[in-house]
Amino acid sequence: MAAGKKTGKKTAVKRGHKGSRKISGLIVDEAGVIEKKILAGKKPTMKFPIRSLGNVRYRPKVGYFELKGGKKERTLTVGTVKTFAQTLRMMSLSKELVEVDDIATKREAYYVSKNWGQARFKEQPESDTVIDDVEALFMVNREQLGFVPEEKGGDVAGRLVVIDRDRDSGKPLRIDCTRFGSGAYSIPISVEDLGFETGAKFILAIETAGMFQRLVKHNYWKKANCILISMGGVPTRACRRFIRRLADEKKLPVYVFVDCDPYGVSNIYRTLKVGSGNAAHINEFFCVPQARFLGITPNDIEHYKLPTHPLKEVDIKRANDALKNDPFVQHHKAWQRALTKLLSMGVRAEQQALAKWGLNYVIDTYLPEKLADPDKFLP
Amino acid sequence: MAAGKKTGKKTAVKRGHKGSRKISGLIVDEAGVIEKKILAGKKPTMKFPIRSLGNVRYRPKVGYFELKGGKKERTLTVGTVKTFAQTLRMMSLSKELVEVDDIATKREAYYVSKNWGQARFKEQPESDTVIDDVEALFMVNREQLGFVPEEKGGDVAGRLVVIDRDRDSGKPLRIDCTRFGSGAYSIPISVEDLGFETGAKFILAIETAGMFQRLVKHNYWKKANCILISMGGVPTRACRRFIRRLADEKKLPVYVFVDCDPYGVSNIYRTLKVGSGNAAHINEFFCVPQARFLGITPNDIEHYKLPTHPLKEVDIKRANDALKNDPFVQHHKAWQRALTKLLSMGVRAEQQALAKWGLNYVIDTYLPEKLADPDKFLP
Repeated sequence: MAAGKKTGKKTAVKRGHKGSRKISGLIVDEAGVIEKKILAGKKPTMKFPIRSLGNVRYRPKVGYFELKGGKKERTLTVGTVKTFAQTLRMMSLSKELVEVDDIATKREAYYVSKNWGQARFKEQPESDTVIDDVEALFMVNREQLGFVPEEKGGDVAGRLVVIDRDRDSGKPLRIDCTRFGSGAYSIPISVEDLGFETGAKFILAIETAGMFQRLVKHNYWKKANCILISMGGVPTRACRRFIRRLADEKKLPVYVFVDCDPYGVSNIYRTLKVGSGNAAHINEFFCVPQARFLGITPNDIEHYKLPTHPLKEVDIKRANDALKNDPFVQHHKAWQRALTKLLSMGVRAEQQALAKWGLNYVIDTYLPEKLADPDKFLP
Repeated sequence: MAAGKKTGKKTAVKRGHKGSRKISGLIVDEAGVIEKKILAGKKPTMKFPIRSLGNVRYRPKVGYFELKGGKKERTLTVGTVKTFAQTLRMMSLSKELVEVDDIATKREAYYVSKNWGQARFKEQPESDTVIDDVEALFMVNREQLGFVPEEKGGDVAGRLVVIDRDRDSGKPLRIDCTRFGSGAYSIPISVEDLGFETGAKFILAIETAGMFQRLVKHNYWKKANCILISMGGVPTRACRRFIRRLADEKKLPVYVFVDCDPYGVSNIYRTLKVGSGNAAHINEFFCVPQARFLGITPNDIEHYKLPTHPLKEVDIKRANDALKNDPFVQHHKAWQRALTKLLSMGVRAEQQALAKWGLNYVIDTYLPEKLADPDKFLP
């Protein structure tokens, strides 16, 4: 793929907000320090931020869980020599990826190591950990290092033109998300290089593929002048990063339309908005602090007389956990009230429950009524 | 949505290979027979095909599991009155959906029933069964009745123009799958109305999103003149139907690129190609008999010296089950040999394992070598 390589080198500088040249430079610098120490006969050391809930804080002004600064050190010794070598090899693979504009899934990176002789990984969890270390070391997200997740997810329709580029010609490609009919634009695994043009007023992120399909089928984005994004449950990294970059760059509010249950609130909405504890070193890139909750609330269940299901035990546990331990919920009285009310009602309601009043009640009544007053959305 | 309705009525006639007028007519006819019986003071009856493995046969010429003809009857009595009424209500909802060109997920249909008074469903499994009954009654697939699954899945890139239409203007929309850069066209939940234009030589259906992304990123479809489809594991109904309709209409071979393990063979490839037992009444629409196995074979593991993992217990059970009970495997000696060999090797290999020889070995070596001789693909 010589042509690809060439184009890659020429244009990859635009990669993300830290260009490939910058990433490549960071790697060279870090490796240079290590090389110097070794040549001087000293033991080289690498410092990684500690990735755990204990090393995390939530400040509403920042808008996501952030690392407090605890670090662990890896010094080259007889005991650490293999991991040390693997980390350097992984940095080298990353440098190659960003320079030729290629990508590797974590699984592919694991298999690539099978040719690293003694530095090869035995199992994938080992190589995953080293990739996470390198990610944290440079304080960039894995995608900027050329490492991408296995999974794809996130569909887009509506008032948005995505700017990608043709790999062979290097020319920009304008992808008009109003022109996919009943289909949609599927978000790629890495979104760092994408540009955006839009006249939309907001982004509507939707929990279920079924509800997304309904809104797409009826061209709802035209009526509401918005961008529809299907998350298909808990959004993938690529989907979260796409929403974040789009919302930041175009200064768009993000409204999240999910079920009224602890899963929709905590696992989907909360993760999208402020991130999660065990991945605190990347929340900076993947959370969407501007997100607001347009989803079904406990009040909506009463107001719209929605059909419900009883809360399951796991729902009750999840809500109680959130009330007790979640710094985000603890910060927002409105969420404490909503979850407490849901627990006392003992029920949950799905976004599809609106269909009781007609399949398109959601389009004709629910969404217009809610959107009339976004200030009332839960935070 | 008056505009939508109007357009829907005008153009929905083109829906699938049985137009909406035809579906609507079938429903009216069936309901007419019942009405006549009732007016004549007789007990009306509906006959449904029995949907179980015992009522299924596999004939290679037909190419998919098909129903043998066993039927169950539902006669209107005191005991069946509720289900009978629900079935008629569901037929009526379907008629409405196809006439106004709308869709309902199974879950939405369940919630719509909450306004059917005594005929409302208590739990969704009940309404799902009635939808399955109606589907089998008319021997069409659910999507043609306007009922669509919750889940979305299946991405497309490469030499294909999908023809959809704009719901508001009724005008055709040409969706050019060569123009989505690193992204892709996401297959809608219902594909019955789509048209196709292509000069491609084959369809390559790929198990993992990661491998799909690699082939897309490197414009592999250009080099190989093909259409790339990401299944993301076991393909959804929409994805299977999309491949089937495209392959039929454009007379394209379908090559399936999956892992070398019993899951890739049985759950993904076999299901895509001939369907499954418990959904025999719809295999006619969803299976892809022209599919051939380009995925990693036990011979490939040896030939390409691929890194492997030991077979898990569930793999061994799955392979033995297939050898013992699967009519498809029993029909094909080549598959019996392959699965027996895999069991004796005691290992499995993933499609990403090719990365041992370089990230793009799959593009530069594996795929060209395999494609040089499709007659050697496993059946």
